Order: sequence, then C-alpha cells, then structure tokens
Amino acid sequence: MLMTGEQYVESLRKLKTRVYMFGEKIDNWVDHPIIRPSINCVKMTYDLAQDPQYVDLMTAKSSLTGETINRFAHLHQSTDDLRKKVKMQRLLGQKTASCFQRCVGMDAFNAVFSTTFEIDKKYGTSYHQNFINYLKFIQKNDLIVDGAMTDPKGDRALAPSKQRDKDLFVHIVERRPDGIVVRGAKAHQTGSINSHEHIIMPTIAMGEDDKDFAVSFACPSDAEGLYMIYGRQSCDTRKLEENADIDLGNKKFGGQEALVVFDNVFIPNDKIFLCGEFEFAGMMVERFAGYHRQSYGGCKVGVGDVLIGAAALAADYNGANKASHVKDKLIEMTHLNETLYCCGIACSAEGYPTQAGNYQIDLLLANVCKQNVTRFPYEIVRLAEDIAGGLMVTMPSAVDFRSDLKVGKDGETLGEVCTKFFAAAPTCTTEERMRILRFIENMCLGASAVGYRTESMHGAGSPQAQRIMIARQGNIEAKKELAKAIAGIK
Amino acid sequence: MLMTGEQYVESLRKLKTRVYMFGEKIDNWVDHPIIRPSINCVKMTYDLAQDPQYVDLMTAKSSLTGETINRFAHLHQSTDDLRKKVKMQRLLGQKTASCFQRCVGMDAFNAVFSTTFEIDKKYGTSYHQNFINYLKFIQKNDLIVDGAMTDPKGDRALAPSKQRDKDLFVHIVERRPDGIVVRGAKAHQTGSINSHEHIIMPTIAMGEDDKDFAVSFACPSDAEGLYMIYGRQSCDTRKLEENADIDLGNKKFGGQEALVVFDNVFIPNDKIFLCGEFEFAGMMVERFAGYHRQSYGGCKVGVGDVLIGAAALAADYNGANKASHVKDKLIEMTHLNETLYCCGIACSAEGYPTQAGNYQIDLLLANVCKQNVTRFPYEIVRLAEDIAGGLMVTMPSAVDFRSDLKVGKDGETLGEVCTKFFAAAPTCTTEERMRILRFIENMCLGASAVGYRTESMHGAGSPQAQRIMIARQGNIEAKKELAKAIAGIK
Amino acid sequence: MLMTGEQYVESLRKLKTRVYMFGEKIDNWVDHPIIRPSINCVKMTYDLAQDPQYVDLMTAKSSLTGETINRFAHLHQSTDDLRKKVKMQRLLGQKTASCFQRCVGMDAFNAVFSTTFEIDKKYGTSYHQNFINYLKFIQKNDLIVDGAMTDPKGDRALAPSKQRDKDLFVHIVERRPDGIVVRGAKAHQTGSINSHEHIIMPTIAMGEDDKDFAVSFACPSDAEGLYMIYGRQSCDTRKLEENADIDLGNKKFGGQEALVVFDNVFIPNDKIFLCGEFEFAGMMVERFAGYHRQSYGGCKVGVGDVLIGAAALAADYNGANKASHVKDKLIEMTHLNETLYCCGIACSAEGYPTQAGNYQIDLLLANVCKQNVTRFPYEIVRLAEDIAGGLMVTMPSAVDFRSDLKVGKDGETLGEVCTKFFAAAPTCTTEERMRILRFIENMCLGASAVGYRTESMHGAGSPQAQRIMIARQGNIEAKKELAKAIAGIK
Amino acid sequence: MLMTGEQYVESLRKLKTRVYMFGEKIDNWVDHPIIRPSINCVKMTYDLAQDPQYVDLMTAKSSLTGETINRFAHLHQSTDDLRKKVKMQRLLGQKTASCFQRCVGMDAFNAVFSTTFEIDKKYGTSYHQNFINYLKFIQKNDLIVDGAMTDPKGDRALAPSKQRDKDLFVHIVERRPDGIVVRGAKAHQTGSINSHEHIIMPTIAMGEDDKDFAVSFACPSDAEGLYMIYGRQSCDTRKLEENADIDLGNKKFGGQEALVVFDNVFIPNDKIFLCGEFEFAGMMVERFAGYHRQSYGGCKVGVGDVLIGAAALAADYNGANKASHVKDKLIEMTHLNETLYCCGIACSAEGYPTQAGNYQIDLLLANVCKQNVTRFPYEIVRLAEDIAGGLMVTMPSAVDFRSDLKVGKDGETLGEVCTKFFAAAPTCTTEERMRILRFIENMCLGASAVGYRTESMHGAGSPQAQRIMIARQGNIEAKKELAKAIAGIK
Repeated sequence: MLMTGEQYVESLRKLKTRVYMFGEKIDNWVDHPIIRPSINCVKMTYDLAQDPQYVDLMTAKSSLTGETINRFAHLHQSTDDLRKKVKMQRLLGQKTASCFQRCVGMDAFNAVFSTTFEIDKKYGTSYHQNFINYLKFIQKNDLIVDGAMTDPKGDRALAPSKQRDKDLFVHIVERRPDGIVVRGAKAHQTGSINSHEHIIMPTIAMGEDDKDFAVSFACPSDAEGLYMIYGRQSCDTRKLEENADIDLGNKKFGGQEALVVFDNVFIPNDKIFLCGEFEFAGMMVERFAGYHRQSYGGCKVGVGDVLIGAAALAADYNGANKASHVKDKLIEMTHLNETLYCCGIACSAEGYPTQAGNYQIDLLLANVCKQNVTRFPYEIVRLAEDIAGGLMVTMPSAVDFRSDLKVGKDGETLGEVCTKFFAAAPTCTTEERMRILRFIENMCLGASAVGYRTESMHGAGSPQAQRIMIARQGNIEAKKELAKAIAGIK
Repeated sequence: MLMTGEQYVESLRKLKTRVYMFGEKIDNWVDHPIIRPSINCVKMTYDLAQDPQYVDLMTAKSSLTGETINRFAHLHQSTDDLRKKVKMQRLLGQKTASCFQRCVGMDAFNAVFSTTFEIDKKYGTSYHQNFINYLKFIQKNDLIVDGAMTDPKGDRALAPSKQRDKDLFVHIVERRPDGIVVRGAKAHQTGSINSHEHIIMPTIAMGEDDKDFAVSFACPSDAEGLYMIYGRQSCDTRKLEENADIDLGNKKFGGQEALVVFDNVFIPNDKIFLCGEFEFAGMMVERFAGYHRQSYGGCKVGVGDVLIGAAALAADYNGANKASHVKDKLIEMTHLNETLYCCGIACSAEGYPTQAGNYQIDLLLANVCKQNVTRFPYEIVRLAEDIAGGLMVTMPSAVDFRSDLKVGKDGETLGEVCTKFFAAAPTCTTEERMRILRFIENMCLGASAVGYRTESMHGAGSPQAQRIMIARQGNIEAKKELAKAIAGIK
Repeated sequence: MLMTGEQYVESLRKLKTRVYMFGEKIDNWVDHPIIRPSINCVKMTYDLAQDPQYVDLMTAKSSLTGETINRFAHLHQSTDDLRKKVKMQRLLGQKTASCFQRCVGMDAFNAVFSTTFEIDKKYGTSYHQNFINYLKFIQKNDLIVDGAMTDPKGDRALAPSKQRDKDLFVHIVERRPDGIVVRGAKAHQTGSINSHEHIIMPTIAMGEDDKDFAVSFACPSDAEGLYMIYGRQSCDTRKLEENADIDLGNKKFGGQEALVVFDNVFIPNDKIFLCGEFEFAGMMVERFAGYHRQSYGGCKVGVGDVLIGAAALAADYNGANKASHVKDKLIEMTHLNETLYCCGIACSAEGYPTQAGNYQIDLLLANVCKQNVTRFPYEIVRLAEDIAGGLMVTMPSAVDFRSDLKVGKDGETLGEVCTKFFAAAPTCTTEERMRILRFIENMCLGASAVGYRTESMHGAGSPQAQRIMIARQGNIEAKKELAKAIAGIK
Repeated sequence: MLMTGEQYVESLRKLKTRVYMFGEKIDNWVDHPIIRPSINCVKMTYDLAQDPQYVDLMTAKSSLTGETINRFAHLHQSTDDLRKKVKMQRLLGQKTASCFQRCVGMDAFNAVFSTTFEIDKKYGTSYHQNFINYLKFIQKNDLIVDGAMTDPKGDRALAPSKQRDKDLFVHIVERRPDGIVVRGAKAHQTGSINSHEHIIMPTIAMGEDDKDFAVSFACPSDAEGLYMIYGRQSCDTRKLEENADIDLGNKKFGGQEALVVFDNVFIPNDKIFLCGEFEFAGMMVERFAGYHRQSYGGCKVGVGDVLIGAAALAADYNGANKASHVKDKLIEMTHLNETLYCCGIACSAEGYPTQAGNYQIDLLLANVCKQNVTRFPYEIVRLAEDIAGGLMVTMPSAVDFRSDLKVGKDGETLGEVCTKFFAAAPTCTTEERMRILRFIENMCLGASAVGYRTESMHGAGSPQAQRIMIARQGNIEAKKELAKAIAGIK
C-alpha cells in the first residue's frame, strides 16, 4: 500500500536509527535542519506517486503480487519500464534539484533479484526466494531501502582479505545456525539515514581468499550494532542559520552522505542473499553498477533542467537575455544535458531480459552514460557561473538585505542600501535576483554542488571504472575485423 | 520484389542519366573508377538484404502492401522500426566505411508521407495518395531514390523570391493542365547518380512570396532536362591510378556528391506532392531534417567502428598496443562513438506516431544527435591520427613498394628497401601495415574524410541549424518555472 | 620604506574603516575570523618582500624616487618588469592558494599613470602630476590600494546617465573649488577592506552624456561617507567554528569581496585623476583590464600549482599514485596550468612602452590569457575532484574525528571509529588524508572556489568582454589578405 | 653571403641528389610539379631575407663571424633571438601556409652546438670545433641543412641494438682512420630533398649497448650512397593536372616528406659530432626536440592566420559574415591560434644560456607549446570546415568551370552552369569563392592537411613524448610541498 509523504516522515520517527554528527548523537534527526532537506527529497518520491498526473511514471504493477507499487520498488519487466525509470528520475531531479536517494534501493532490488537467481541455479541455495519474500515485504509496506555497496577499502592496492584491518570491507565474523554476524562499514551512503532498511552488497569482484567478504543481506536501519556518522558538506551549517532561506538557494531540498557502521550486526538466514559464493560478487557489482550508471542519465538531467532554467532566469534578471552569447550558452547547456538524457534512454531502450526475468540495461551504453555524467555537469555548471555573473559569490547575506541598521547619511538602512545597489533589470525585484543567484551558487559551489558535481563524478563508480567497462564491452576485436575486411587484410 | 546487388548494378545501366565530370560527359558512368566505389556502397544495401543473418534489420513488411521490402523503402510503424533503422545504418557503415546514400530516400519517404497527409487534410488536395502510389511503385521495384533538399541558395541573406537569379532555388516555371515545369538545381546530392529516382523537397520554410518555390515532386534520374555535374573530392584521381588498391585505403567503397540540374523538367500531376502550399514547406523540411539527423546517429557510428578498429590494428602493427595511453585513446574513441549511437537510439525510442500513422523521431533529441556528430568524429579522427603515427602521411606509394628498380649498393630494389625500412612489429607484414595506415589516411584526410568529417558537419544541416532547433525545442520557459519553484520565486 | 607583515596588520588597526557583515557593524574587523584570512594574504605580500630569496621578484627600484619599493607599487619599466610581475603573482598564489588582493592597486597605478599623461597632453590638466605625487606617497609608505572599477550597473541595457537610479554608477554630485563630492558604489571589491586607500576608476567607455560618471580619484578607505558591506561566500561560517582548522582546508588564507559605498564622499582636487573628460574613460578601462587580465596568468597559476600538488598528495594517500590514469590526469592539470602561465608570460614579453614611459602588456595576448583562465581552472578542478575521490565531500567533521564519545560495542570512541575507517595507504595518517581532501574541497566547492573558479570567470571582465577585445585586436582584415595572396584572389 | 631565392633554386640544380618517386628515379626534381611547391617554401626563406621590411626578423649577425647571415643559420644569443625566431616562423607560415622546412636545420645547429661543447668538456674530443667549422661554412654559403632525427625504429619495444635488422636505426658499420661508414635511414624527413646538407642526430636516449647508434654527423645531400624515397600525400597528383591552379587551393607552396637512406655512406672525421658517447644521445635529442617544439608555436600559428583569414573570406563570400555564430567561431579560432603563439613566445622569453653560450628555450613550456599544437589546429580546422560549408568538398573541378561543352537547353555551357549555380554574395565572383573554398579544402583534407594537421600531431615528437617531458619537468614534488604547507601537513 502506498504511503503518503507525510506517512513516510512519520514512519521515520518510529525508527531508532543511531546518527552521529559534529561529535554528538542526534536524537531527533527527522527534524534536524541539516538532515531534513534530504528527507524532503525522499518524501517527494511518495508525494508524486499520489499525484494523478504522474501516476504512470511513479507507480507500477508489482510483478510479484500484482499490486500497485511505487516504481522505486519495481522489478523492471520491459525496456519500457527501464525508460520510465529514467523519466521518473528526471522528474524527481526537476522537482528537488537534489539527489532523492531512492534509486540505490531500486537498483539493488533488480541486481540482487537476477544475481540470486543465478547463484541458486548453480548452488541450489535459496537466496532468490529469500529475496523475493523480502521484496514483497518492501513493496507491500512501501519502504525505503538503501542499497549499500562502497566499502572504505583502506589500501587500494590490497584485496579485502589482505588488508591490515579486515573491517575495511564488510565481512562475516561469525556463522551461526540461525544466521551470520557481520562487521565493517559502508561509506558515502547517500540515503542511509532516511531509509527504513539496508541491502548490503559487496563492492568488488572477489577471489576465493575473500570468501568471508562475499556477502549480501538485508537489515533494518536501526538494527542492533548499526550506526551512522554524518558527512559534512559545503555550506552545511547555513541550514542552521536563523531565517535561513534565501542564502540557502534551495531551502527545502538537499542531499546527504553518511558512513554506515556494522558493529557485529546479526543477520538472520532469511535475509541473506549471498554468503561466500565469491565468484558471484563481481556479477552483483557489475549489475548494480550498470543500473546505477543508467540512473545518472535521468536524475542529473532533471537537476540540469533546473540549473538551465535558473541560468536563463539570471540572464533575464541581469538584463542580458538578448545577448547572442547568452542564448548560445543556454543552447549549449541544453545540448549537453539532453545528450546525457539520450544516454540514459538508449541504455534502457537497448535493455534485455535476465535469466530471472527482469530487465537489464545495455551495459556498454550505461557505462558511456555515466562517463558523460562525469564531464557534462561540470561544463553546465561552468556555463551557469558564466551567465550568472560574479554577484553570485559577492552578494551580502540575506540578513544584511533585511537589516534595519541605519548606515547612510540620510538614514538609509543597511537593507535599503543592499536592495538599492543590487537592483537590476526592472522585470524583477532585488530579492528575486538574489534568490536565483543563491540557487546557482548552491548548485555550483554550495551544498548541492556535492550532489550535482562530485556525486556525478564518483557516484556509481569513478570515471576510470567506466573506462575499464567500456574497454571490456567495446568489442575491439570485432572492430579490427571490420577494418581488415575493408583494408584488404586477410 | 527485392533486387540482388548485381541486379541493381545492371538496372543502373539501363538508365540514361546524364553525368558530367572533368569537363566531359561520362557515358559509362557505372564502370567509371571514380564513381564505381559509391555504387558499391548502394549495392551493399541490396546484398545485405539477401543475407539471412541480416534479414530482420535489412527488410520489413510494407505497411502499404504487406510485401517484404527493403527497410530503406519502409514507412516506420513503431519506435522499434526507428531503432532498427539506426542499427541497419550502423551495420552498413561498418561494411562500407562510407556513405551508402540510400538514407535520404528513406527519410524523404517518411517526411513526405506525413506532410502530404496534413496538406491534404487542410486543402483537400491529393498529394498523399499521389505519394502512396509512388511509394508502392518504389517498394515493388526495390528502387533507389535520392531525397534532394539543398538548393544552391545564392545570397543567403535573401529569400528565394528575392534572389537576382531565381534558378538558385528550384521553382515552378510553368503550370500546365497535366503537370508543372520546374527549373533550378539541388547541390551536394550524395546519392543522385546512383539513384533510379529523385524526390525533390524545398530547402527552407517559405512565405507567401515564395509560393512558386514551395514545390515537392518525384521524377526519374534520367528525366528529360535533368543532368548532374560531379563534385571533386580529396584524392579522387587516386582511383584512376593503375593498380590502385593499397594507396586507396578503401578500394571498394566511397562516396560522391553532385549538382543536380533541372533544366525545365516536366513533372506530371501524379508525381507532385506539394505545389504552392508554402506554409507546409517548413514542416517538410523540419521532418526530413529530423529523420536525417537521426540517421547520422547510425551511419557515422558504423564508420567510426571501422576507424576505431583500424587504429587498434595500427597500434598492434606499430608494436604500441600495450601502451596505456594508446589503450586509453581507444577507449575514448569508443566512448565518443557510442555516445553518438546513444543519441541515435534515444531519438528513435522516444519517437511517436504522426497524424498519417508513420513514426516520427523525437525532434529535440535528433537535433542533439546531429550536433554531436558535428564534433565527435573530428575528435575520433584526431585520436586515430595520433595512434597511427606520422608514417600515415609520409609513406612512399604502393608503386615504390612494388618496384624492382635497383637502388642499393648490393642490388636491393626500391621495393625491397621500402619493405625493409617500414617493417615494424613482427606480427604483421609491411604491406599489412601500409594497408591499415592508408585506410586511416583515407578516413582522416583522403576521399573518405569528405564523408566522415565534412558530411558529418554539414549533412542534414550545418551545426547552427541544429542549435536553432535545440533552442526552439528545449522549452526554456518550463525550465525557468522549475527553478522558480525551488528558489522560492513566485 | 618597506613595512613588515606585522607592521601592515598594525597599520590596519589605525584605520577607521566602516565594515558591515550579517547585519552588524564589525568594529574589530582586523581580528574577525571571517576576514582575517584575507588579511593574511595581503600580509604575505609584505612578508615575502622581506625574504632575501624573493627580493628580486618582490621589490623594485622606484622609477619616481629611486628608492626600493614593493613591486606591487611599481610602474613597470620594461618587459622584464612585466614578466617579474607575473612571477611574483605566481609565487604569491603558491604561498596562499588564494587571491592576495594587491594586484588591483598595481594595475590601477600603471593604467592611471599612462592615461593621465595622455589626458593632460590633450587638455593641459594636471592629473598626471596629481597621480605622481600620490603614487610617491603610496610607495614611500608601502600602502595597499584597492583599484576599484566595477559599478553595480543596474540595468545593463542602459548607459550610466540613463539609469533610473544614477547611484548605480559612481558619479560627481557636486563640484566645489577645492574638490568634488562623489556618490555611488563599487561592487565585487576583493581587497577593499584590507586596503589603506582606494583608487576609483570608471567601469566602461562613456559618451558625452555620461560626463559626470567619467571620474577617477583616490581616497582613504576610512574616508567620511565611505563604508563597506561584506559579501558572503561558500562555507564562510566554517571559519567561526571552534577549533576550525582541518575542516577549513586552508585555515590561514582566504579571499573576500565587498560592496564599497560612496555616500557623498568629498575628494580634494589633488586626488583627482579624471573629471569629466569622458573620452578617456574607455582608455583607462581598457588599460586597467589589460593589466589585470595579464595578472590572472600569474596568480591563478600559482593557486593551480598548489591544487595540483594537493591532488598528487591525495593520490599518494589513497594509494592510487601508480595508476597510469592518475599520472596522466596530473600531467593534464600541469599542462593546462602551464598554458595559462605561457599566456601570462607572453603578453608580458610582448609589452611595449606607453607615451608616459611605463610598460603596457600586449593587449591581444592578455585577453587571450584571461579567456583561457575562464576555462582551464574549471577543468583542473574537475580533474582534482576526480583524483581526490568522493570522500572529499562525504567525510565527517573534524569534531567527529576528535570526539571521545563512546559509540562502539568495545567502547570505541567516535573519533577512533572515524580514524579507523578512513585510514588508507600506510604512508599517511588519517588526519593527513583528511587535511588534503578538505583542502581540495575548499578549492573545488568551498570558500576558495570563489577565488579559483568564479573569480577566474568574472574577475577582470567576464568571458564575453575578452572575446570582444580578441575580435577587435585580432586584425581579421590582414588575415584575409594573407589568404587572398595564397589563394590567388586579387 | 646571403643568396637570393633564385640563386637558391639554381644551387639545387648543381646537386646530384638521388630521388625516387612512384617507382622511378626523378632526375630533374627541381622542376617536378609535385616537388616544386616545397622548394618554393624554402625559397621564401631567402626571398624574405632580401626584403628590407623583414631584415630584422630574417637576418642576424653571426656570433661566429660577425657577418650578416640568414637567421635560420644563427646560434641564438639571447631570449630576444629566441622570440625573433618564433616571429620569423609565424611570418613564413603566413606567406606560405605550409611547412618551409628550414627550421630543422636551425634547431639542429643550436642543439648540436651546445651538446658538443659538453661532450668535449667531458671527453676532450673536438666535436665542438668540428661543428663550429661546419656551421661557419653553412653560414658563409647560406645553405639549407636538413636536421634529421627520426629513425624508422622497427619494433618499438626494442632498443636499437636489439632490433632484428640493425639498419632500422642509423649506425656505424665501420671505423676508419679518416672517418666512419654509416648505414640506416631517417624517416619523415620534411626538408631533405630541398637541402644542400644533412645533419644526422640520434633519435632516442641510448645505453652502452647502443654505442654504435650514438652517432651525429654532417654530410652533403648528394653524398655517395645516400638517396631519398618520396612520400605520397593526400591529393599529390592534383599538382600534375594540366592547368592545376584553382583546384590546388595553394598552387605555389606545399610540403613534402621523404625517407633518407644511408647505404654505407662515408663520413670524414671533421664532420663527426658524436661517435659512441652514448650518454649524450639523450641530451642531443632533448635539446633538438625542445627547440623544435618551440618552433611549432611560430610556424603553425602563421599557417593558422591564413586559415582564419580564409574562413573569414568564405563567410564574406557566402554572405554569412554578419551571423553572430560565425563571428564567434572566428574569435574562437583566433583565440586558439594566439594561445599557441603565447606558448611559442613564453618558452622563448623564459630561455637561458647553455654552457656553450647559445640560448636554450624553457623545456617545460616548449613541451606545453607542442602539446597544444597537437590539439588546437584540429579544432581550428573543424571550425573552418564549419564556416566554409559543404560546398568545399562537393564543388565540381576547375575544368568543369572552364568547360565550353554545351549542356543546357539554351546552349549554356558546362562552365556557365557551374558559374551560375555556385554564385553567392554579390561581393565576389564564383571563381573567388571557389578559390577560397579550395584553399580551405587543401588545408583541411588536402595536401596541406598533412602539414597543418598530421605534422602538428607528430612533428617534433608525438603527443605522448611531450606528456612524458611535462611529467618530468613539472616538478610535482615541489607542488606537493606547497600543498602540505597550506593544508597544515608536516
């Protein structure tokens, strides 16, 4: 049954998730001003699912139960589903200009579903049924799940089992009749705090020595022994400022990241999806990464849409919208953004069914998609900064704009002086101009730059990871044969 | 009924097409060494349609007759058809490393089909039925049609009706009861000579004064009053050299362009598809251009595949294939090429039915596709030149390599000396190395560079034409609203 | 006489400069944690001048008095001086990784010196002598001067005299026998607060109607009626945090910007350098902008050096320094950075004497220099983010790393847990890794990103301003003649 | 004594240089239509030296004899000389739009001069005096010398002494009391045929096993046992066409490359500059390469000037010169071209004296210069193709334009029809338009593309060679220290 956004927020209050920030345990993290914007993003995935105009994108019929579910909990049944996933992500990017955090769960569902099928086929295990039962529970209760992959990794030159400190990769420390005990941590977890549940997956392909590290399972976010340490972001404490609004740029939405620590957490048998079958670790990683690289061809495009709109508004407000170079820069931003969208759509349209029956994206094109995402948002940001003008980083604070401290010879207040001197084209108020410039600041070098830039770079794997996949998937030998045939080489 | 490749070539011999080149009328143009490689490309569209492994891509069931036809004569019935079009084009690019010239006809069919439907709906004319009859004839006889759009244009600052010389745009010079007489020319016509038929379309949106220029029709390539003047290309005369083979790089395939002159050509009524309804000129242009911009996301990707393969072979032959920078350049070439493919696929997958029932591509994404094609092939070429090494442009001629003229003190022949000094890695012969370097030369700055570079730039409209469409289709106002909502601007 | 750095700081305390920030008047701004880092940058220009190893770069012999002066107060006497200017700026960029704010004064001195010479020559005014006297005073007392050019500008489509609110450009409101009274503001003033003095210049070329806006003069920073409103930057309040150090990335140095308001400020006659001779406004702007565009080929290169070093350290600390792609990215960063330096050096080496005798840079090459600065730092930043890895934006706060709050089952503290999980290569401590990642964060999307990115974009004129100058200086007509000669066109 | 251009051409006739092309020995190569354009380029280096307006750039006072000499034979005595070298090269690029081939000699002179000084200092050899005597002879007789470095190299994974065929690197086959006998070849030799003399240098740093390959010497171009095999270029045979002129684009000037074979050539002792002192091979290579990488910051900029001018003319002739995107593309071309010039000037201005007293360029900046040359000309070409339009590659031949074959119904000739349809803006004749488009074709994908593109890529070392040098010269360790200091890392 679909929850409303409000119900989602209330459901979080019931969790006993342990969160640390700035050296303290945060008890009411649901209402914490630094955390709340990221919750609002997740909430949007519920709100839009209630909105009739988006029902086709936001919901789907469960392949497991036939019930209507949020698309984020769906197993893709066709290339059409894959394309709708991308469109849903673009929509959410447009509505939040942020990371809305629910994709990792969806991508984990689809990767674990097909991988467990193949493990069971080989080993006669029951991971696939475990997973189906688990997913039915998620779908039925419309829950948020953090799909967690990235371990801290320690010394990158060493395999998990060769690390000085084994905890740098999540691993099994005890095997019991009723389950396992795991230890370690997952880093850079975007949606961890706002999730009801976690699905843990291995972070790299593994060898036999790494058997204890080849583990996948689910657990609640407030499981005993599990806690989270909040990462700090550019401009995070602006959210703590009184009357924070204008200076935030985007006061309602935002992202977050946390380190999720597993301090000897017990996992019962029916929540285990991989447990030592090391040769499947790589498959799970590759599939999850593939889906997640597709995702970036949707979500970041939506965020790009908002930034393009903001740059266009800034041009209007600056009185520069008629300049041919400004128009051309907006075209270039649109062109780059739509190229990303093309990649998201193409790897979806070229998808194909897995052995388990759900649909997988085209792996080569999904990697090409993500590789472009490591480049174009940076250029879009650069062009936005160009159009916005320097005022975006030199403007006084909103407090100054509202201050009634007298500063001028004729008794003008500080607020009046600010308003006077930062007035621009007659089509907007000074405050409107401030708002749009602060929004652009937020996207380019404030809190949202973390999501739009650095996450575009490293989320779903750093650029070199995609290049390795492109090399593997590019079929260079077949291309050589094409060249030989035409050049007359036998 | 599908023709074989051989039948196609024979069918050309029956035409009386008038062709001029180097100041002379070429009578047996079918066997002319400069022209033949371009015929071989078209022939490949027939050969592959006969090949069982490609039958799904290369043929389709006619929506008009239910017969099996070559896909190049097909009206797209679904987004699946649109994607198959792109895949067919990539395949042909891979097999020829050239422009295979049959796309303009296919793109014209689909654009004229839907536009005539809308003209008839408004004016009660019978252009659509004319066109259906015509296309049945084409499908039945498996003919090649040149879809011709670009007029010479004269002074670009002036509309057609304002030109000093009206002939610089094709126009109606006489209206008779049984048809019209047209005059003018179409420039840059890639497939004109190798086509059985021509479909003429206007080249720009037009106003009321340009009524006589708003004309679309079909006629045979050897119609009375029609003749063609061959364009010269880089390295064209290498094809005339005796034993031309290695130095050509691609001895079998190539492109061509011609000026097609209409010297008072009579067009009977049933071959007319637009005749004065000036406000539909723009629609026909936009739709044809849209399809044709999609096309580049297929054909040039196929050509790129061959060039990437050739660069990889050159690296092998030079003994440089282990160098990390070489591997990385091959990845980059692949990445760029697949990005183009993503654009071709995406604008297809996002297609939609026209009023007439055939499928139209997504216009924004097709323009984004072509815009990327004006950039990435140039970078792919640059990287290929980087990997190939300078020898590609400093190597002696094949004649030297084969010469038995004695030049060395020990009686070594010129051929032996060339072979000795241009030997490289032990994995290839000197001739193999020459062949692949000459192929790359041909693609980068020889005859095929015309097709892979300049045509990528200007074919289906020059870059600025796409930017104008991106601006129009990018819906910047909606993007501004997204930004306002988030920045808190009413 | 040269001041020491300490003497400089003390000298600031004697000023009564009026500064507003966050709605309040800041009395002890010298020690304010948000402002102080920017003072430390200026201080470095004094400290290095005392350092024997830098004496050749940092000092010069005054052309006016023969005394040893800080090079920042020097009139360039040769192309060698121009190159040394660039090298001095690179050095300071390397030492502060920030904007050190003293260049605007130097660039104003040289522009006003040569422009006043030409005004006097035409009008018999005594601005040049006024300026010489003033500069001797500055040189003798080793003072900091803010060269202020950019007006708020209001509606960009209108000339100064056509603005609804005339105050949006600094202008003369009263002419008295002993001087003038001016009103208006200068925006984006980087070094205003830390300067002893201000030189005001017009911001654009002007026509006769704008006579009252064509004004240049000097005044002390604490002149009656003058006050400053501080601009807020990304992450500004991190500087207010207790034990702020690691999270700042660069705890000692930083930039700032302010709005400088002239609320009917009286300027005595001997401090006036332009007063109504509107046709010289353009010359003053063009010369100042030219020098300042040169400057960016020095200072940002120095900052780039530090960022490249930081990225290399991050690679070391992450254990990724052997990866060929990482090495290649460091090469690319170096290549781009040195290309900027080439531009800075080249426009200096091609300098020439003005009528007044000081040296002017090559205007075309200086604009080319700045244009590259609007691009390459963004790519350098992107590559730094790539190498750094996502941890740069997901790491807990320094407070967490130091916390002794017990969180683990075995009594591990929060600090221990953070230290454990963010350990990497054995060659560094976790704290060292944090420090370098926070430094990169600061440069890429923190406070220093304002200086390294947005200021690179808009400082000394936005990109389009340089393009207009490149068009003007590029001598396209002469290039056409070269082409005609070779192509055989008369 | 300076020769005139005519004297130079006559002096070539006296040489018995052995040249092979298309399988034949070319006896009168001086007047051969394929070779002559490249001789005309070299001739221009003599002609301009006679022109009073260029005397300061084109000539210098010999540091050896005090006589006036052509600057191409000069040992650089200052950074001013280094900058003049670059300006001279830009001038010659502007006058020929081609490679003028004399730089390799100049760069060899300066590299061999300083390297021999250091060898002699270590070993007490007399190479330096040998070289001084030789250079005096060259200066006195104003001769052209090909500085030859690149060996065929065979299997790139193996050192010279490890090659299966030792001849793939030039080496000593016999040591006699009066001299040595050498064997091997030099590939890609641009100016070999048009040179009176050759200076041979090793192509890579060498180890002790490669002693016999560590050899440098001079010999006449028609030495016994020496011969050349001409390389074929794109569109080479157009030069053989009757009335070749318009279709050539640049009918007067061009480049060339040849393989220079040493078939047991005797070198007398006084012409030897290195003979087994293997550890100096690397120094000679690095210095020559450094000078030659500087050179590209001059010559290619001059060629770029002509191409920019041609693109601007094409825009004029097409009637597109008012379009803002065209203007912007011309600005971008200028910007890129001047960035290259900045690099050429900067590495010169930052030059320094060698132990031998002549001036060396800044090695880091010279490598940065050349690295940019491997990129920007390709983008300049792309933009030129964009502006030119497709007609550049689809135009009929000049023969067609001149043909009086009747083809039209009213008796219009082929020439008239071509002229009619390719008329454009009223400001030019059709022939003028053809000429400029053919010139652009020639630069972008005709014979001159070899020089402007591929040679920019691989001349003076392929891109990766520069990256290796940038890594070595970039002093990354010092940059790490800068970052540590600011980030607070001990």
